[in-house]
Amino acid sequence: MIEVDGRALWEDIIALGEITETDKPYTRRSFSPLFLEGRAWLTQRMKEAGLTPRIDTAGNLIGRLEGTHPAAGVIVVGSHSDSVPSGGRFDGMAGVAAGIAVARALTSRGRALEFTLDIIDFLAEEPSEFGLSCIGSRASAGCLTAEHLTLRNPHGETLETALVRMGADPARLNQARRTDIEAAFELHIEQGPVLESEGIDVGIVTAIVGITRLEIEFTGTAGHAGTTPMTLRRDPLIAAAELIGRISRTAAAFAARRCGHFVATVGSIEVLPGAANVIPKTARVVVDARSESRAMMEEFRAALDAASLDAAAAANVERTAFKTLSDTLPALCDSRLRRLLEESAAALGYSAKAMASGAGHDMAFISRVAPASMVFIPCKGGRSHTPEEWARPEALTAGANVILDAILRFKQTAV
Amino acid sequence: MIEVDGRALWEDIIALGEITETDKPYTRRSFSPLFLEGRAWLTQRMKEAGLTPRIDTAGNLIGRLEGTHPAAGVIVVGSHSDSVPSGGRFDGMAGVAAGIAVARALTSRGRALEFTLDIIDFLAEEPSEFGLSCIGSRASAGCLTAEHLTLRNPHGETLETALVRMGADPARLNQARRTDIEAAFELHIEQGPVLESEGIDVGIVTAIVGITRLEIEFTGTAGHAGTTPMTLRRDPLIAAAELIGRISRTAAAFAARRCGHFVATVGSIEVLPGAANVIPKTARVVVDARSESRAMMEEFRAALDAASLDAAAAANVERTAFKTLSDTLPALCDSRLRRLLEESAAALGYSAKAMASGAGHDMAFISRVAPASMVFIPCKGGRSHTPEEWARPEALTAGANVILDAILRFKQTAV
Repeated sequence: MIEVDGRALWEDIIALGEITETDKPYTRRSFSPLFLEGRAWLTQRMKEAGLTPRIDTAGNLIGRLEGTHPAAGVIVVGSHSDSVPSGGRFDGMAGVAAGIAVARALTSRGRALEFTLDIIDFLAEEPSEFGLSCIGSRASAGCLTAEHLTLRNPHGETLETALVRMGADPARLNQARRTDIEAAFELHIEQGPVLESEGIDVGIVTAIVGITRLEIEFTGTAGHAGTTPMTLRRDPLIAAAELIGRISRTAAAFAARRCGHFVATVGSIEVLPGAANVIPKTARVVVDARSESRAMMEEFRAALDAASLDAAAAANVERTAFKTLSDTLPALCDSRLRRLLEESAAALGYSAKAMASGAGHDMAFISRVAPASMVFIPCKGGRSHTPEEWARPEALTAGANVILDAILRFKQTAV
Repeated sequence: MIEVDGRALWEDIIALGEITETDKPYTRRSFSPLFLEGRAWLTQRMKEAGLTPRIDTAGNLIGRLEGTHPAAGVIVVGSHSDSVPSGGRFDGMAGVAAGIAVARALTSRGRALEFTLDIIDFLAEEPSEFGLSCIGSRASAGCLTAEHLTLRNPHGETLETALVRMGADPARLNQARRTDIEAAFELHIEQGPVLESEGIDVGIVTAIVGITRLEIEFTGTAGHAGTTPMTLRRDPLIAAAELIGRISRTAAAFAARRCGHFVATVGSIEVLPGAANVIPKTARVVVDARSESRAMMEEFRAALDAASLDAAAAANVERTAFKTLSDTLPALCDSRLRRLLEESAAALGYSAKAMASGAGHDMAFISRVAPASMVFIPCKGGRSHTPEEWARPEALTAGANVILDAILRFKQTAV
């Protein structure tokens, strides 16, 4: 039985974590010199694992292990090596290191696959300084547009120029679009508390949620907090406060139906002019709603439309915006790969749970052009995007072994 | 019958309004060169009205008309000539100009009072860059402390040094404390919508509200907006939203009792970290509550204490602050002066209404050392602290005439 080298996997993650802004661990922002330093280190580790590294025209780092049967197509294992500011060492990196560990397990035993194996560090999965996330996987799916290339970072540099710095060739971006992938796998920490709290080894992801962001604004009449009687007020914060309560209660009710993952959050509220002694003129909230069911999302959106109009009427203010800031569809994981991963987890003696991903991932884009799948492992306290982010070495080994086993099975069933 | 010259009163207000930051009308901040320019102009107008101007040791500009009977004491008419940034031309200035108009009406007819008449431009009534308001009237009441003098503006200058720039003598501050005032009058725009909406000429102020500012903070657990199930959330914004609704409903119920002015406002809310995709860790609101009844304020405070604990428990978060930021007692206007003003309004044929002041004023401090009173006049749309602030010339004339008449009656009844 082939297994990954769990110690080498762990050491890779910890070693790459050392390549960080020293005063702000763990930070390795996409497009930065540190990011390139991390990639140089990764490239070396890929070579040591028997992979042939290259940068594709979209700036993805790809370590390839040629298959014995070139026409069989490509199996991808990948994630990303960039981080958010003051993030952790596991979000993204765990999936890249797991891919290298899978390749190492094969090459160290002289095992060749009929399929070609690509271990991919997708470029800039986290929101970059160009205001765009999933840049590399977006390009792999043929979704990085000419308009995206004109985006500028705060220094005025275009994404196109920055891609060249990353070794990409944006003039030939279409060559990065993948049509050759037979199966794609991504290992990732859950970034939530479910697996840990239920004591489960791996999550087999059913879908990556669609994310709908709505901006809802109420406008009333600014006034002196002392001299405007309660009966003559048109205070938009009263409407916003009522709506925030409704959003939470409605989302909880939707989630309780057990028809799939549903969450909604108000994480940001802006009240203007924002002085303690002035009745606000406007109150604006941004709602982040996530669902693996488009039908539920549409029902939620309609419920918020009605609730916000009700709240405005009750507070005698206007609802001056109900605007979609962004809206992505849920991305389904491939059912054949899910079944394969479940069988592998069972064969290896790991407990598994089918669950949705509430966060976005590179596989959401890859699923547009290939059968895609994800394996979640527990992380401490469900915490992510913080230096305290933590996963146990055994959990990482388990997740990587499940993917390795599924790849070996995939070979057996498909060829 | 003696009346003020309404046209001169109006022209004074408009002319002083021209002394403003030109790109940000109407702005004449206390302690600024423009403020001194405005005072030079006011000093000249005082002299032309037959007053003898001086600066007291607290930096108040006082134009005096000596009485025929020095032992009779002093009658004060005053307000302030500083403005908020991008404020109006009437808040404060109307009361100073009305005082000069009253003096002019007397001197132009050769009328002398037995009382000495002081027309006062109190220094820095609006919140100054030292974070302190009512600096001059505070000193008149003996409430400007040595600690206040050490406050610094953003340039690092102490209030003590700035007072010297204003012509004050902070080493002899105690000499500014007034013990000689028999009656004080302040004309002011209402800064609220009541008089205009009810079609009433003048408001006779019963009390200047006490203002209690509370900071209430809730703390939960920050989390990923996508991966944290609704059932595992500890979202402090849910508690804050519930509390905001409770504050509004409770204040409306208190006001509806008709036991005096009561208002409460949340004008400022801070949610951290404040990103759309992160469940907040903390939510902090500042409550501004104003009442002319201390008993009602204490009842309100107790209600908020209970409501905020309830809201925290319901959202499974902690209430981590329930803190008094500031707390002033209501200041009662003198009942004899109120009656006098009501009689004068009736004698002159003006409709009048007893009402509280929801805003702070110099008379709140003066009431600590002398019988104090206020006359409100309607302002357009109840708007104040904005360039659109507006009062009709006839309204200003009416208010000034009511004060002039009351001063003449006060003389008759008191001596």
